[in-house]
Formats: sequence, structure tokens, C-alpha cells
Amino acid sequence: MKRLYEGKTKDVYELDNGNYLLKFKDDVTGDAGVFDPGANTVGMTLEGAGQAGLKLTTLFFEILKERNIPTHFIASDLDETTMTVIPADAFGDGLEVICRYRAAGSFLRRYGKYAEEGQELDKFVEVTLKDDERNDPPISRDALSMLGILSGGDYETLKQLTIDISDIIKEELARKNIELYDIKLEFGRDKEGNIILIDEISGGNMRVCRDGKAIDPIELANIMTTE
Amino acid sequence: MKRLYEGKTKDVYELDNGNYLLKFKDDVTGDAGVFDPGANTVGMTLEGAGQAGLKLTTLFFEILKERNIPTHFIASDLDETTMTVIPADAFGDGLEVICRYRAAGSFLRRYGKYAEEGQELDKFVEVTLKDDERNDPPISRDALSMLGILSGGDYETLKQLTIDISDIIKEELARKNIELYDIKLEFGRDKEGNIILIDEISGGNMRVCRDGKAIDPIELANIMTTE
Repeated sequence: MKRLYEGKTKDVYELDNGNYLLKFKDDVTGDAGVFDPGANTVGMTLEGAGQAGLKLTTLFFEILKERNIPTHFIASDLDETTMTVIPADAFGDGLEVICRYRAAGSFLRRYGKYAEEGQELDKFVEVTLKDDERNDPPISRDALSMLGILSGGDYETLKQLTIDISDIIKEELARKNIELYDIKLEFGRDKEGNIILIDEISGGNMRVCRDGKAIDPIELANIMTTE
Repeated sequence: MKRLYEGKTKDVYELDNGNYLLKFKDDVTGDAGVFDPGANTVGMTLEGAGQAGLKLTTLFFEILKERNIPTHFIASDLDETTMTVIPADAFGDGLEVICRYRAAGSFLRRYGKYAEEGQELDKFVEVTLKDDERNDPPISRDALSMLGILSGGDYETLKQLTIDISDIIKEELARKNIELYDIKLEFGRDKEGNIILIDEISGGNMRVCRDGKAIDPIELANIMTTE
């Protein structure tokens, strides 16, 4: 089993049959020891974060499967903290697609002149480049197309998939009285050329609140998988 | 005559008949004493910069008038370094619309992972918010619409006007063997609700090269108005 990539919160291995194995780690992104799903650095190690992330990801990917959303998910092994997935090619060196229901984080840092913290946003989708060195800059549909990263048609597919998936996640969270502020998704292209959801969907990818209080990734997994 | 606004490179007065008077100053934007059209700070004072800017702006606005491009221009007084214009309302607290023919400046700082310095770009248009505090963040068509700054239809008008105007300026510069890398325009809405070009078009708004060497705003005005 060959390690293909060592990530901030997961390592990726190639299995003999060509599928990939994701190994979830206990590291979470953040800044100065404070969890921040939008951060580019590993802020801290939280015991159990890897397993919590995998549990929640598995729950959400299974729900998405029932709703006919194309994803890379095959199966999870909670004891080994691993997930088996279909291999997929990233767009360029990787994109993140964000869906925002309320203003927070980098959106406010950029558009704070026109938006207040927590203000409702109408399923606002934006794309950022995965580029630690340049602090994950947002990029428009036109720029993605011009730089050969993503065609205009694929952008629309990505945007619609992002809204569909985010709405499903938001609805699931709402059942437990949890409100989704924003969520970050990743997509890739499978062997047949289809755009599919990749990576994970866990507390590390989203901002959520219950009774106006932020919930951390481990607490979120506990609530969603046990309550 | 009432002063309405004190800008970095121009002051704006209201005339008794309701028109505005722009007074061009000798200050140019830049960073640490180096001219940079994309900078947000006044980098230095260049004697004659105001008059050079007005001369070039007048030349370009007259050419645009002949080509039926709607602008705020009425007349210039070179001795007083002033320009009389139609009043216009900004979009939100002001937008800048950039047209890029080659990669430079903030485009490279954001997308340098996918573009090389000086690489050809296909009339790439992007919009930034005028917001010194947040370093003029780029903003997408979707975000402009959601935040109530500019509708989708007006965005398309702005984008097409930007390409038309930039192409005319590029063509005029090319007559003197000068190449336009990028140009920054501002638009407003007149009393009748039409979108018109406002502000100035001078060396302070663009990056230009001749024989591969950058040309500063005063030199550019000299070349364009005397050669």
C-alpha cells in the first residue's frame, strides 16, 4: 500500500485494486490553538478527532448516496479510522467550494463593509484555490475558465451540486437543532469524467451553531451519531 | 463651490449648476516611493503629475466620446488642472473594474500558482471593492448581486463597457508602440440611470510598457500628447 499524499488532517494511500484509502488523523485546522475550519494550518491535535470526523463523514456520505449525489465514498472502517474511496482527479491543484448560509470567517474579512457577522446569505457559493502560500484566494468562474482549471459548464455543475449537498447537510443538522453557517466541499473527476464529491464532510469542514453557540468537530460528531 | 470629497489623487467639488469639478493633484499611488497603479496609498508627489493625468484623461475621454462610449466628461481646464463632469452615483461605496491583457500585480499575487508574470490574458475583467481597510478585495458577480451592490444585468453591462473601453485605449496606446498590460476603470450611474464611465483614465490607472520597459504616468502623458 503506497502513501500518495500526506495531508493536514488525512493521509492518502493507494490500494492494490486501484482504490484509495484515506487515513483520518487527530489533527484539526486552526490558528493559535483555536479551531477554525477556514484555517490553513494545523492548529492542534484533538484526541478522537480523526474517528469523530470519519463517523460524521460516513453518516453524511451514506445519506448523500440515498439522495443520488455522486461521491467517492465506498466504505469506512471505524476501528482503523480509514475510508475507502474511488480515485478522482482534482481540478488544477485542488479547489474548495464554499456554500454560505450566514456571513462569517473569510467572507466577512473580505466583505465586512457590506455585511454584518451572522447576516443571512442566500446559499452563496464561492470557489477558492487550494494554495497555502497565497492563503487560498477566492477565484471567479471567469478566472477558473481562463486559467484552464475549470470550464464554465463544469463550474455550473459544481455550483449546483454544492447547493444540493449543502442543503441536504443543513437539513440533517437542523433535525438536531443545529444551524449550518457555512460548509466547504471538495470535488474531483472520476475515471468516467463525472464530477463527484470527494474528501470528507465533518465538523472540520463547516461552521455550526446550536442555541447561538459554536459547536466543535468532536461535539458535533457526538450529537449527530448518538443523540 | 463646495468640496464634496478629498481623494488620494483628486479632490471633488460641486458646482453651482449641479455639475462636479475634479481637481487633479500631484500625488500618485504607490508603495514606499515606487509608483504602483494598484496601490491604495499615496506613494509620492510628482511635480506635474496632476496636469499630466488631466491631459491624458482629456485625450482619452475625447476619443471615447467619438466612439459613443457614455462618460461623465464635459470639459477640461489644463491651466487650473480641473475637469468638469456630470454627477454620478457610485455602486455601493465604489467599485473598480480591471481589464487585464497580461498577468501582473494583484492578479499574480492571487493566481501565481497558475500564471506567470507577463502571461497573456484574454481581456480578463474583474471587479474589486473600493475598501482601503480590506485592501480592495475582488468580488464576484454573484456576491455583488447578493449584497445589493450591482445586479447581474448591470454586471454584464459593466463588463462589456470595460472591454470596449479598454480595447479602445489599448489601440490608442499601440499607435505609439506602447503595450497595455492592465487598466482600472470606475463607473457610476447618471441621473437618468445610465451606467457611465467616471473618474479618470491616465497613467495612474494602468500598467504600460514600451520595448519591455514600464512607463511612468508623466512619461506616458508626454508620449501620448506630444510625440
